[in-house]
Amino acid sequence: MKHIPVVVIGFGPVGRALVKLMIEKEGELKQRYNLSLDLKCILRSSVAFFPSPSSGSLNLDLLEKIDNPIFWHEKPSLDYLLRLTPPGVLFEVTSSDLKTGQPGYDHIKKALINGWHVVTANKGPLLLYFQELHKIARDNKLKIKFSGATAAALPVLDVGKICLAGARIFKIEGILNGTTNYILTRMNEGISYSEALLEAQRKGIAEKNPSYDVEGLDTAVKLALLAAALFDFQLGLNDIEITGITRITPEEVAQASKQGKKIKLLGCLNFEDNSLKARVRPEVLDPNHPLYFVDGSNKGVTFFTDFMGELTIIGGKSDPRGAAAAMLKDLINLYCNF
Amino acid sequence: MKHIPVVVIGFGPVGRALVKLMIEKEGELKQRYNLSLDLKCILRSSVAFFPSPSSGSLNLDLLEKIDNPIFWHEKPSLDYLLRLTPPGVLFEVTSSDLKTGQPGYDHIKKALINGWHVVTANKGPLLLYFQELHKIARDNKLKIKFSGATAAALPVLDVGKICLAGARIFKIEGILNGTTNYILTRMNEGISYSEALLEAQRKGIAEKNPSYDVEGLDTAVKLALLAAALFDFQLGLNDIEITGITRITPEEVAQASKQGKKIKLLGCLNFEDNSLKARVRPEVLDPNHPLYFVDGSNKGVTFFTDFMGELTIIGGKSDPRGAAAAMLKDLINLYCNF
Repeated sequence: MKHIPVVVIGFGPVGRALVKLMIEKEGELKQRYNLSLDLKCILRSSVAFFPSPSSGSLNLDLLEKIDNPIFWHEKPSLDYLLRLTPPGVLFEVTSSDLKTGQPGYDHIKKALINGWHVVTANKGPLLLYFQELHKIARDNKLKIKFSGATAAALPVLDVGKICLAGARIFKIEGILNGTTNYILTRMNEGISYSEALLEAQRKGIAEKNPSYDVEGLDTAVKLALLAAALFDFQLGLNDIEITGITRITPEEVAQASKQGKKIKLLGCLNFEDNSLKARVRPEVLDPNHPLYFVDGSNKGVTFFTDFMGELTIIGGKSDPRGAAAAMLKDLINLYCNF
Repeated sequence: MKHIPVVVIGFGPVGRALVKLMIEKEGELKQRYNLSLDLKCILRSSVAFFPSPSSGSLNLDLLEKIDNPIFWHEKPSLDYLLRLTPPGVLFEVTSSDLKTGQPGYDHIKKALINGWHVVTANKGPLLLYFQELHKIARDNKLKIKFSGATAAALPVLDVGKICLAGARIFKIEGILNGTTNYILTRMNEGISYSEALLEAQRKGIAEKNPSYDVEGLDTAVKLALLAAALFDFQLGLNDIEITGITRITPEEVAQASKQGKKIKLLGCLNFEDNSLKARVRPEVLDPNHPLYFVDGSNKGVTFFTDFMGELTIIGGKSDPRGAAAAMLKDLINLYCNF
């Protein structure tokens, strides 16, 4: 049995889902993967929670205690905590800042310097410091896994790196954002953009301030992370041509629909002549396109390769549980080689 | 740079495509993966080919020489060959015998006992001796990889094991055979079973004796291998309810079509109450089914999971190059941990 010290930093919906999942999957992780996770602490911006080691770090009481403020204490420094125990995995799930990458950047760097692997869902630090952070990881023989930052339960990174190992990928097209795909699917069914947005907000699919999704930024950031991971190209958002879905008119949707086509927000990475072009924009897809049928809040990605043909993956539960499951998967793959 | 001794046993279309691919990808493997493959020999049933080590084992001359019988010599024993050099990877691509598993079974066993990893596209030995061979592999800290035996370039095993690590898969549905899917797609377009079969044979999609595909056996064998790899259940063909596509009438296809549905040959693994049910049969899919749109000789698989929702993969070039690429991918994943 491998015992893995785990620290969770950030305790929003994904952090909470992750802790819950670790508790639910404790037995399965031991039985199927020979992995025993030892949750050392959960950190929020100013407080820390330490599971009682005497009763096993992961048990059902934990969730009750977590919800009780008396069990949260003043937060020691992350450095101090990371040096208290043998290194393991830092789950970094603080909120993403695309301008500074903070506080995730500091957390990830500290973890790596102290010998901890990092599993993160935080886009900011990877968008801004991908190469620097990965160099530190390599120099310390550690890994940064970030399925949770690309398309969560849709395993775009694993498929690109592992399932297509050895193949040359020359193009990637993806519907990488569930919110915009939901809105476009509903518009295709005849309702207006603003009605579809309202509905998505009511259902908890779209955020109150939807601009990050609907302006195409979320898709662009995911493209940048894929470009870095799969093509070794560090793109900034300025290097990506980005058009969102806010200016699509009902007439355009109806026009496409009349021809049996659909408008989808596509992210595209095109690798040609040793240069990589990245763009996000609404495109009219006909039924022969492999992503034509990806509807609702589903996501999908098609890889175009030299020897393995086209490979499309569709799905990827877009909720905190799906993101948490993707992060747990990353941890398992750090320690198990199948 | 890791130097990997490689032996190829079997030299039909897949073995040939594999050697060609190793030559074409030599530089890429070195640059991207730090792997240098050293092809020690190619074995056919009674003769062996030894690349000249002086000029590098993988070069373009090789293909010309391979086609010249004077460069083929009497075959030494496999045991002898495997002990000549430090162990590496045996590519086992002899033809599959579902009744005896031979000669693949002997080859795989010998490789493992002599310290070689095995990458195979050979279904017979895995169908009959999955657990025994994997036990030998584990006991010797080796691996058997067999993407080439399941759906080749469609990465069913990788996705089930790696991308869905930690998730519980409770059902798998798949269109696992390109030939039958091609025939059904054409029938859906209005031609008869026998016309569609003839056309598939003319195009090289169906074999002269198509019964292995059209009777559903190929799909059943792939299901059995998935059951063993992903659920740790060894199923024989007798444990699988198998119905092929030969008795589907044009009327049935037309009837489905009129309702906007399609008939597809589905393989299904259903894990319930600790028991695994496996069946292969034509099913009528409506457009909401994730595999409804998998047409022509394409393949597709949907995984139904607890925390990662539904995940569908579609594609997987069904030709010797695709199978060879899947085997090369398996080799890369033996040595690289992403």
